[in-house]
Amino acid sequence: MIQRLSLAMIVTLACLAACGSAGWAQSSPTKTAEEEDVERIGDLVLANHILADQGILDGFGHVSVRSAKNPNHYFISRSRAPALVSAADIMEYDFDDHPVDPRGRSSYLERFIHSEIYKVRPDVQAVVHSHSPAIIPFGVSDVPLKPISHMGGFLIREVPGFDIREAGGNETDMLIRNKELGAALATKLGNGTVVLMRGHGDAVVGQSIKHAVLHAIYAEFNARIEADALRLGGKVIFLNEVEARKVGAVNDTAVDRPWEIWKNQALSRSQSR
Amino acid sequence: MIQRLSLAMIVTLACLAACGSAGWAQSSPTKTAEEEDVERIGDLVLANHILADQGILDGFGHVSVRSAKNPNHYFISRSRAPALVSAADIMEYDFDDHPVDPRGRSSYLERFIHSEIYKVRPDVQAVVHSHSPAIIPFGVSDVPLKPISHMGGFLIREVPGFDIREAGGNETDMLIRNKELGAALATKLGNGTVVLMRGHGDAVVGQSIKHAVLHAIYAEFNARIEADALRLGGKVIFLNEVEARKVGAVNDTAVDRPWEIWKNQALSRSQSR
Amino acid sequence: MIQRLSLAMIVTLACLAACGSAGWAQSSPTKTAEEEDVERIGDLVLANHILADQGILDGFGHVSVRSAKNPNHYFISRSRAPALVSAADIMEYDFDDHPVDPRGRSSYLERFIHSEIYKVRPDVQAVVHSHSPAIIPFGVSDVPLKPISHMGGFLIREVPGFDIREAGGNETDMLIRNKELGAALATKLGNGTVVLMRGHGDAVVGQSIKHAVLHAIYAEFNARIEADALRLGGKVIFLNEVEARKVGAVNDTAVDRPWEIWKNQALSRSQSR
Amino acid sequence: MIQRLSLAMIVTLACLAACGSAGWAQSSPTKTAEEEDVERIGDLVLANHILADQGILDGFGHVSVRSAKNPNHYFISRSRAPALVSAADIMEYDFDDHPVDPRGRSSYLERFIHSEIYKVRPDVQAVVHSHSPAIIPFGVSDVPLKPISHMGGFLIREVPGFDIREAGGNETDMLIRNKELGAALATKLGNGTVVLMRGHGDAVVGQSIKHAVLHAIYAEFNARIEADALRLGGKVIFLNEVEARKVGAVNDTAVDRPWEIWKNQALSRSQSR
Repeated sequence: MIQRLSLAMIVTLACLAACGSAGWAQSSPTKTAEEEDVERIGDLVLANHILADQGILDGFGHVSVRSAKNPNHYFISRSRAPALVSAADIMEYDFDDHPVDPRGRSSYLERFIHSEIYKVRPDVQAVVHSHSPAIIPFGVSDVPLKPISHMGGFLIREVPGFDIREAGGNETDMLIRNKELGAALATKLGNGTVVLMRGHGDAVVGQSIKHAVLHAIYAEFNARIEADALRLGGKVIFLNEVEARKVGAVNDTAVDRPWEIWKNQALSRSQSR
Repeated sequence: MIQRLSLAMIVTLACLAACGSAGWAQSSPTKTAEEEDVERIGDLVLANHILADQGILDGFGHVSVRSAKNPNHYFISRSRAPALVSAADIMEYDFDDHPVDPRGRSSYLERFIHSEIYKVRPDVQAVVHSHSPAIIPFGVSDVPLKPISHMGGFLIREVPGFDIREAGGNETDMLIRNKELGAALATKLGNGTVVLMRGHGDAVVGQSIKHAVLHAIYAEFNARIEADALRLGGKVIFLNEVEARKVGAVNDTAVDRPWEIWKNQALSRSQSR
Repeated sequence: MIQRLSLAMIVTLACLAACGSAGWAQSSPTKTAEEEDVERIGDLVLANHILADQGILDGFGHVSVRSAKNPNHYFISRSRAPALVSAADIMEYDFDDHPVDPRGRSSYLERFIHSEIYKVRPDVQAVVHSHSPAIIPFGVSDVPLKPISHMGGFLIREVPGFDIREAGGNETDMLIRNKELGAALATKLGNGTVVLMRGHGDAVVGQSIKHAVLHAIYAEFNARIEADALRLGGKVIFLNEVEARKVGAVNDTAVDRPWEIWKNQALSRSQSR
Repeated sequence: MIQRLSLAMIVTLACLAACGSAGWAQSSPTKTAEEEDVERIGDLVLANHILADQGILDGFGHVSVRSAKNPNHYFISRSRAPALVSAADIMEYDFDDHPVDPRGRSSYLERFIHSEIYKVRPDVQAVVHSHSPAIIPFGVSDVPLKPISHMGGFLIREVPGFDIREAGGNETDMLIRNKELGAALATKLGNGTVVLMRGHGDAVVGQSIKHAVLHAIYAEFNARIEADALRLGGKVIFLNEVEARKVGAVNDTAVDRPWEIWKNQALSRSQSR
C-alpha cells in the first residue's frame, strides 16, 4: 500500500509539470535539468508498470532513461521484477555502468545494453530490453520482421538480428554481461529502433521513455500480426518504405494518447502492495 | 472516480428512456430528436468502453454515431483513448468534419472515415474504425474473410479490401486524413458492413450503435475462427449466401442480449478513475 | 448487488444439501424431488456463470438441466446472456418447449436442442449449447476432433458433426429453431457426449450439470491442444479407445475438484451488479 | 476470507525466516529442520497459487516438496484444486505414499509421481505435475521440445517423452496410479528437469520449490515460443548445449526475482474466499 501510494504520488507530481506534453523535446524551456530528471524518473516507474501490464516484460527485462542533467548517466531500477518497481528502486549509473549511490541495491546483470546504446546514439533517451513473446520467434528465424501494421511503421526496412555468437563465440551464457557484448549489440542496432537478440528477446529505443514504450508495445503487436498473416497461407503485402517512415513519424506525435490509457490500466491493475 | 460516476449516471439516464429496446427503429414515437440524441451519446460512451474492453480498440481507433436531430451531423469523441472517453469528450461534427463546439478539444485525424460513410449510406447510423487484431491479417492477404461462424453472417459474400495506394498513391502515411481518401473508402465499402483497410484495420457499420458494436466484435470473432479453421489443414465449409443473410438478420434482432453483458463487463472492469 | 447476493445465497442454500457430493447419483436417498430441483436450479445458475467465466459461452449459448420431479420437463434461463443469469431468470419447460410459468419472460430460440436430447437420452441430465471458439473450426473442417489430452477422454472415437443442410436444406438460418431440427441433432449425437454443429458450435451433455460443464470445458481444451499439436507438423498420437474410455470414467468421478475452483473464480470475477 | 488471511499469515511467517534467500542451499545454518519445513510448507501453498495464477495448473495437477526433517517424506496438498489450497490442506506422506496424519483428507490419485522421483533423485527437493497447455502438444508429437528461449536453458538437449504404454501396456487409464508407473516415469526423467507425459502433461523438478516453479513456468513459455517459431516456416536456431547449460545455471540463481512478482500476482488475484 505504501508503494502504491508512492507510485500515485510520483505520477501526480510528474503530472503537475508534464501532463499533456508529447515528449521531452517539447518541454518547457524554464524547466531545469533537475526538474526534468524528476519527471523522467516518474515516467520510468510508470514505464516499468505499463510494460509489465501489457505483457512485454515479465519477471525479467528492464527499461532505462538517460539523465537530462548528465547525459552520460542513465536511470534504471535495481535488480527487481518491473511490475514491483517504485521510485526507491531507481538507481543512477555512469557509462562504465557503476552505480552512483548503490546503498546496497543490486544491479541488473545486463545493464551494459543500455549504456552502450546511449553512447553511440545521442538521439536515444530511453531503452527497453525485453523477452517480448511474439518477438522471440523472429529472433531465431530467418523470416524477417517487417512493418505489416501501420502501428509498426517505425520498423522501417528489416529489423537487424543480433546473434551473440558473432561477438562472444559459441560458449556464452547468452547474456549481455559486459561492455564488449553491449557495444556489439549497439553496433548491430545501428540507426534502427529495434534489434532482435537470438534466443533471448530484443532491445527497443525511443526519443523519450514514452516513445520507447510505444515502440516496444507495437513491435510485439506487429510481430503477432505478421505471424498470423503469414499463417493464412496467401500472398502478404507489407508497408513500403515511404509508408512506414511517414506513419511511424505520425504515430510518434500521438504517443500521449495510448500512454494515458496504458497508465490507467497499469495503475488500476497494479499488484504492488 | 468523477468520470466513473458520470459514466454510470449517463447509463442510468439513457436506460430510463431506452433499456430493453432493440434499436432505434423500435424506439418510442413520442421521443423527440433531442431525447434520441441524448440516448445516442450515452450509447456512444458505452460503445467506446465496450469495444476497448473486448479488445477491438486499444489506444487508437474510434466510434461515431449519426445525430438524430441533424442527420448531416455526427457525434464522436475528442482525440482520446476509447477506454477513457466520457460524455464531456463527445463532440458534434458537420459533414465537412468541422466541430460545432470545439472548446479547445482536439479532433481525431481520421474522422473523415465517418462523415464520408454517413454521406453515401443513409441506412448507417454508427461507424467503428479499429485496428482489430484478427482482422488486420486478412487486410494484407489475398485470403478472403468470409462467414464461417453463424455469428459472422453479416459478412455476406466477400468483404472488400481497401488499399490506400489505389486512391492515394504509393507515398501516403496510410491514414484517412482527408475527404478524398474517406470518400474512396466509403465507395469501396459499398453496401457492405465491413471494409478491410490494408496494413491498418477496418471500418464497420451498423443501423444503430449497438449493431455497429455487434458487427465489430463478431467480425473479429469470425476472423479468428476462420484463421484457426484454415490452419487445421483440412477442407473448410463456409456459410452459403442464404444462410449468412438469414442468420445475419436474426442476430441483428438479438443485439440487446450481448449488449447487456458487454455493458456490465465494461463498467465492472473500467479503468476510468 | 442484489443479484450478487441472491447468487451467493442460492449457492449457500444448495451447499447445505449438496456440497461434497460428486453428482446426483450419490445424493441422499432422503432428499425429495423438490429439494433435488432446488439444488439443480442452484447449480444451473452457477453453470451459467462458470461457462461464461471460462470462455465457453459469451452473450449467446445456453445450459439446461432436467427436472428431477418431472423428468419430462427441463429448466433453462429466459433469453439472457449467461453471465447475468440469476435464479429469477430460470424457467421450466415441457417437452413441447412451452414454458410452464412464463410471466412475460422471453425464451431462447433454440431451446429445442435441449428437449429433443432429453427425449432420446434418459441418461442425460444436463445439456450445454455453446459457440466454444476452439470447437467451431472442427465443426467446419474434415479434420476430426479426437481425444488427445486425457482430460478429453470422454470424446471417445470421433465426435459426430451435424450439418444443418442434411436436415433442413440449403436455405436455413443455421438455427435449431424447431422440433424437427432438434430431433435431427439429437439423432446425430447418438450415444456420444459432444455433437459438432457446422458453422455454429456444439451441444455437450452430462449425467449431471457438473458433468456437462466438465465436458464442455475440456472439449474446448482438447480442441485447442489438438489444433496446436497438428500445427507442430510432426506425427501425432491420440489416446486409444480403451485409454479414452477408462480415463473419461475416472475424470467423471473427480468433477467436484474443478467445480470448486470454477465456482470460486466465477463468483469472484462476476459482472453481475 | 479466513483462508486468505491464513495464506497471508503463512507468507509473512515464512518471510521472517527466509525472504531474500535464493534457495534452501543458502539458508541459515542455525535454522532447524522443523523451521525449514515450516518454510517449505509456506512456499508450497504459494506455489499452488502461483502455478494456478500463471495458467500451469487448472483444477488438476499438483506440486510437492521434500521434507527437510525426514528426506524420505514429502508434503503435498489433499486432493483439491491448487488455487484453493491453504496450509490446512497440506499432508505429509512417506515413500510408500501413505499419509502420516490423514484426518479424513483424501489423497491425489497420482502422488506416486512424486515419491518415485524423490527416491532416485536426491538432488530434487520439489516436483510439479501439470497439464501445462503448450507442453501437451510436444508430448504427443515427434517434434522435440528444445531450448529456444534462454529462459528455457534448463531444457538441455532433448526432453524425454514418457509413453505410459511402454510401462503399463495398451489398456491403462493414462494415470500414474501405482508405484510401478511412478518408477517408470522417474526412470524416463533420468537426470533431466522435465519429462513429457504422452496425452497428459509433464513432471518438472527443481532443487527447491521456487526452482520447480521457475522450471514449470518457463517450460511452458519455451514450448509456446518454439511452436510459434516453427510456424513461421523458416529455418530455426536453437540454443547450443553450452549456451543452454550456462544460462540455465544463471537463471537458477535469479529465481527470487520472478518469484516476488508471481507471489504478488497470485495473492492479489486470489479466488480464495
